[in-house]
Amino acid sequence: MRKVYLAGPDVFLPDAVALGRRKKELCAAYGFEGLYPFDNEISPNLIGERVDKLIYRANERMIRRADLGICNLTPFRGPNADPGTVFELGMLVGLGKRVFGYTNVTNDFLNRCRALGDIVLDPVSNAWCDSNAMAVENFGNADNLMIDNALIEHGGYPIVRHDARPDELYRDLTGFEACLRLAVEAISKSA
Amino acid sequence: MRKVYLAGPDVFLPDAVALGRRKKELCAAYGFEGLYPFDNEISPNLIGERVDKLIYRANERMIRRADLGICNLTPFRGPNADPGTVFELGMLVGLGKRVFGYTNVTNDFLNRCRALGDIVLDPVSNAWCDSNAMAVENFGNADNLMIDNALIEHGGYPIVRHDARPDELYRDLTGFEACLRLAVEAISKSA
Repeated sequence: MRKVYLAGPDVFLPDAVALGRRKKELCAAYGFEGLYPFDNEISPNLIGERVDKLIYRANERMIRRADLGICNLTPFRGPNADPGTVFELGMLVGLGKRVFGYTNVTNDFLNRCRALGDIVLDPVSNAWCDSNAMAVENFGNADNLMIDNALIEHGGYPIVRHDARPDELYRDLTGFEACLRLAVEAISKSA
Repeated sequence: MRKVYLAGPDVFLPDAVALGRRKKELCAAYGFEGLYPFDNEISPNLIGERVDKLIYRANERMIRRADLGICNLTPFRGPNADPGTVFELGMLVGLGKRVFGYTNVTNDFLNRCRALGDIVLDPVSNAWCDSNAMAVENFGNADNLMIDNALIEHGGYPIVRHDARPDELYRDLTGFEACLRLAVEAISKSA
């Protein structure tokens, strides 16, 4: 059974374990084994290492064991996805694994930056810039171009965009399940 | 000559090309060849592909050619590093390359989140949470634990922290040069 690494800021939720269980059940329904970071049992006191280092090592081992990854790229504490998830997406790609991603906000990156304020259209270059005069990408993507395009190049599909209810922003699994369907399709195509 | 991929939000600066030149000159002074994303010449009209896809492909090719990476992980548009840079860090790690990183803000992640407001200490769990009740990491790290620990595990050194002047936040190369020195040290140790 193919193993799917389940990346996302979901691990920071108070009900992270329950959500991970739901994700793993959905994986099983589509013929996959879900690998959820929270499953790693960390016992820092037994070996005297820093907890964050142990979590890092356990997650990295899990990513290396996975056959593919599904990443929750919903904007997190600002205009972009959770950086832990984005790091894991990059690592999966570097390891040559197939990647899929979803976001629970349909609005694109530029429009989210505009809604957060503090960006302006430069009349000379006709390009959007932030308060540091740094360019804001305007490609209609959900996030930084490296993220959107990594999914297309290394999974075969654009990021799945779905608007969740605000109180379900990090729990809605509509996009996650769509990724599972895409993974099944991608594997059957390549078989 | 070893090739260093130069990752960072520097590419969004109006003077990105000049900054890249300075970084490449510093690389040369330490015996490295710097690979700067902006060096990629993109001619979209010649082949009819989307510009963002062409940039992605050129950057990925450059990352694969590199022997190591130095990442500018200065907080960008929120409490975390630029997600494009974080993706590239992950990819470098997945490809088995040595990685180094710097930030031009010394304050740690939790303190930066506190300064941005909107996080509270839960009196029951004694843990910091954001307005979605999602945990805020409190390990004294510069960023998400995956980022800080990737540098230690796959470069051998923690992130270099240096406080730049606010108007030099994305241009100060003190930490960058420190990473070059660490890279020289790491390579001489492993030789």
